[in-house]
Amino acid sequence: MPNYEEIQQAAYQSNMQLPKLGLVLFTFGNVSAVDRSAGVFAIKPSGVPYDELSPDKMVIVDFDGKTVAGKLRPSSDTKTHALLYKHWTKIGGIVHTHSTFATAWAQAQRDIPIFGTTHADHNTVDIPCAPPMSDEMIKGNYEHETGFQIINCLKDRNLNYEEIEMVLVGNHAPFTWGKTPEKAVYNSAVLESIAQMALLTEQINPKAPRLKDALIKKHFERKHGPDSYYGQ
Amino acid sequence: MPNYEEIQQAAYQSNMQLPKLGLVLFTFGNVSAVDRSAGVFAIKPSGVPYDELSPDKMVIVDFDGKTVAGKLRPSSDTKTHALLYKHWTKIGGIVHTHSTFATAWAQAQRDIPIFGTTHADHNTVDIPCAPPMSDEMIKGNYEHETGFQIINCLKDRNLNYEEIEMVLVGNHAPFTWGKTPEKAVYNSAVLESIAQMALLTEQINPKAPRLKDALIKKHFERKHGPDSYYGQ
Amino acid sequence: MPNYEEIQQAAYQSNMQLPKLGLVLFTFGNVSAVDRSAGVFAIKPSGVPYDELSPDKMVIVDFDGKTVAGKLRPSSDTKTHALLYKHWTKIGGIVHTHSTFATAWAQAQRDIPIFGTTHADHNTVDIPCAPPMSDEMIKGNYEHETGFQIINCLKDRNLNYEEIEMVLVGNHAPFTWGKTPEKAVYNSAVLESIAQMALLTEQINPKAPRLKDALIKKHFERKHGPDSYYGQ
Amino acid sequence: MPNYEEIQQAAYQSNMQLPKLGLVLFTFGNVSAVDRSAGVFAIKPSGVPYDELSPDKMVIVDFDGKTVAGKLRPSSDTKTHALLYKHWTKIGGIVHTHSTFATAWAQAQRDIPIFGTTHADHNTVDIPCAPPMSDEMIKGNYEHETGFQIINCLKDRNLNYEEIEMVLVGNHAPFTWGKTPEKAVYNSAVLESIAQMALLTEQINPKAPRLKDALIKKHFERKHGPDSYYGQ
Repeated sequence: MPNYEEIQQAAYQSNMQLPKLGLVLFTFGNVSAVDRSAGVFAIKPSGVPYDELSPDKMVIVDFDGKTVAGKLRPSSDTKTHALLYKHWTKIGGIVHTHSTFATAWAQAQRDIPIFGTTHADHNTVDIPCAPPMSDEMIKGNYEHETGFQIINCLKDRNLNYEEIEMVLVGNHAPFTWGKTPEKAVYNSAVLESIAQMALLTEQINPKAPRLKDALIKKHFERKHGPDSYYGQ
Repeated sequence: MPNYEEIQQAAYQSNMQLPKLGLVLFTFGNVSAVDRSAGVFAIKPSGVPYDELSPDKMVIVDFDGKTVAGKLRPSSDTKTHALLYKHWTKIGGIVHTHSTFATAWAQAQRDIPIFGTTHADHNTVDIPCAPPMSDEMIKGNYEHETGFQIINCLKDRNLNYEEIEMVLVGNHAPFTWGKTPEKAVYNSAVLESIAQMALLTEQINPKAPRLKDALIKKHFERKHGPDSYYGQ
Repeated sequence: MPNYEEIQQAAYQSNMQLPKLGLVLFTFGNVSAVDRSAGVFAIKPSGVPYDELSPDKMVIVDFDGKTVAGKLRPSSDTKTHALLYKHWTKIGGIVHTHSTFATAWAQAQRDIPIFGTTHADHNTVDIPCAPPMSDEMIKGNYEHETGFQIINCLKDRNLNYEEIEMVLVGNHAPFTWGKTPEKAVYNSAVLESIAQMALLTEQINPKAPRLKDALIKKHFERKHGPDSYYGQ
Repeated sequence: MPNYEEIQQAAYQSNMQLPKLGLVLFTFGNVSAVDRSAGVFAIKPSGVPYDELSPDKMVIVDFDGKTVAGKLRPSSDTKTHALLYKHWTKIGGIVHTHSTFATAWAQAQRDIPIFGTTHADHNTVDIPCAPPMSDEMIKGNYEHETGFQIINCLKDRNLNYEEIEMVLVGNHAPFTWGKTPEKAVYNSAVLESIAQMALLTEQINPKAPRLKDALIKKHFERKHGPDSYYGQ
């Protein structure tokens, strides 16, 4: 039997960050970590409280959503993770939460406008909110179709998953991803903060304008790309 | 004298969860745990701070609201608990809090609209807000009548207490219940989260639509019923 | 020299509750405890961080605001405390904070409407907001006049300080009191909770009605008066 | 090599206050401490998590923004700090955060109105929000120009940096300063509290008036100037 300890450890550590960052109530969230060479990922077991988790409880699943190793049932959102890993070959981790402010924007079915540099440090566009799914998709292979809804949302807007690492699923809640599970968790916390500040911004000034293009470009390039100068 | 240790322990443990989950200020909440075979329940003593509680301080009360064992006076809401246990024969625990957001909806005298999947994971309908009670009910056996107000609210809307385990009492605050006191506490925390997100949703989009029926059905059935696949 | 240890200890313990209850930032609050027989009270020294306080640092002041014992300068709000102790002969403790939600209502110069039972458990009326003071009062003996503004606010509305133990000073912030300093601190936390829920209530339903009289009477009498049945 | 330990220690201690005061998510903030005699300041290294900081990791930079000592890259906002130290010769510390409420006002591009005494205890004017920068400034030496934007904002309004120690940069976030880095951190926390209370004030009363002049003067002079009587 192959050794999945590394991704189990990674998935475990990242799952444990969610309650610490205030992003989950009870078990309403999950993180997965991929092993590209083995074609599998480790994901939180379904409905198990965070304080009962341990690395060996992380379930190993392949990109078709089939459990490969582990005694527990994987997260009910597993097929969404599987589809995203299958189609987006450069991501290393995925996070799903029902964090308060990001979920409120998803329920309101609105993109989160880019109002400031905190947003621009991470993305150059409004955070997209995918429309609610069609009844056929919902009644069919629901979690699998949720993955397609996310992928199609980015496609429809000509967005690259390597540049925008977060999305809202309309009526539902946020998904984030990244090169590593740590980065995906980081993105979930950033999204929650952006979501809260955008709501407050509109409350303070209902006519608050979007960030000007020069600032969007500047701040994104401070943190990303060949001329970035943020971090070590 | 019969042994009430089990329900005292259960009521104690669940009461102690309320401050941990941020659902109570001072003593503004109470949990009870029932023993159906003995026809009694254990409930928090009135006005005793959570950090002074111990299992043996839980008061034993019968379904008419009469204290059966215990030296302390039971919660002032005891008669509401008693009536609900008497009429709803399959519930094992009841929780009452004045949690911030759920209480605000109760004070606003509005049902909480079902806006997203976090809500649909737990209920298929708007969280009902019972109308304020009539002056006769208030001046009469108030806490007893509060129980009837809750029961009648569900009856009027053709709701089953086994399917919807939470209600707002108009002008007052929420009550939740469940097969166990743990589940009733869980429901209180879920309700508070739903209440907060629903308010934020309306602030972000005053015209936010209710969740579509297909999604309501899908999410509820993921967690409940014969085809559920959430949890272990 | 008389022994002030008891009120110093009481004032110290109650002051230390303010940061624990989330009611103060830095040093923006103070509690005092009175000794009626000695005609003095103990109050927090001005501008000293809570984690540097100790009982012996509490300053002893008489009802004219004159320091009687202690090496530190008393709170800048001392004269307000002194005046209230002088005129309201049955109070044992006073609290002043700039707690977030109560201060926002004070800044908005609005009474806090009585919307629910959480409020009615403690008061039968809207929480009064005293109007901002006249320029003469401000330029004169400001903190002394603040005490008169509070006393006159209750007088103008025919309110009894033994029944309503909290007030907002317009443009400024809340003051609370009680038979003991512990009760005054309790009132500050209750006021902050009521203030937050009242704002949320209006956001959920801008036309939310005030609580009906029968419920106001019922809930207040559950906790207060000869027929009360809350607590032990 | 000169000894920078004192300012490194000061910068370290003040940086560590930011997460404790709830003013930063991840690494979204920085504090610097100046040594006027040496013409340098110590500043947080860029993108290093707070729990990995130590005094010796603080980078030493001169007033032209050139790194003088230290192995790590300094904060990406270093040039803004450098310019402010160069032009404002009496400040000892500078703080930049993306704290939630202050940033929301910056994104809304509005000054924070002076609504109450909490505000007046620290400033006599609305907290100024500098307009977003021109495209030329952004595309040029951005962080250097940010410093000029702040200096010009105060100049345009005839404000003295020794009297008003906080500003919002439109679309971006707050900067604060003070005679010491401790005071600058204190100002950041005060600003965040003022920003939250001002938003709540407008929600409670959209027509809430600004504080009257007599109260502004009185409260500011209680804490500042020759006749101040706050503190020890």
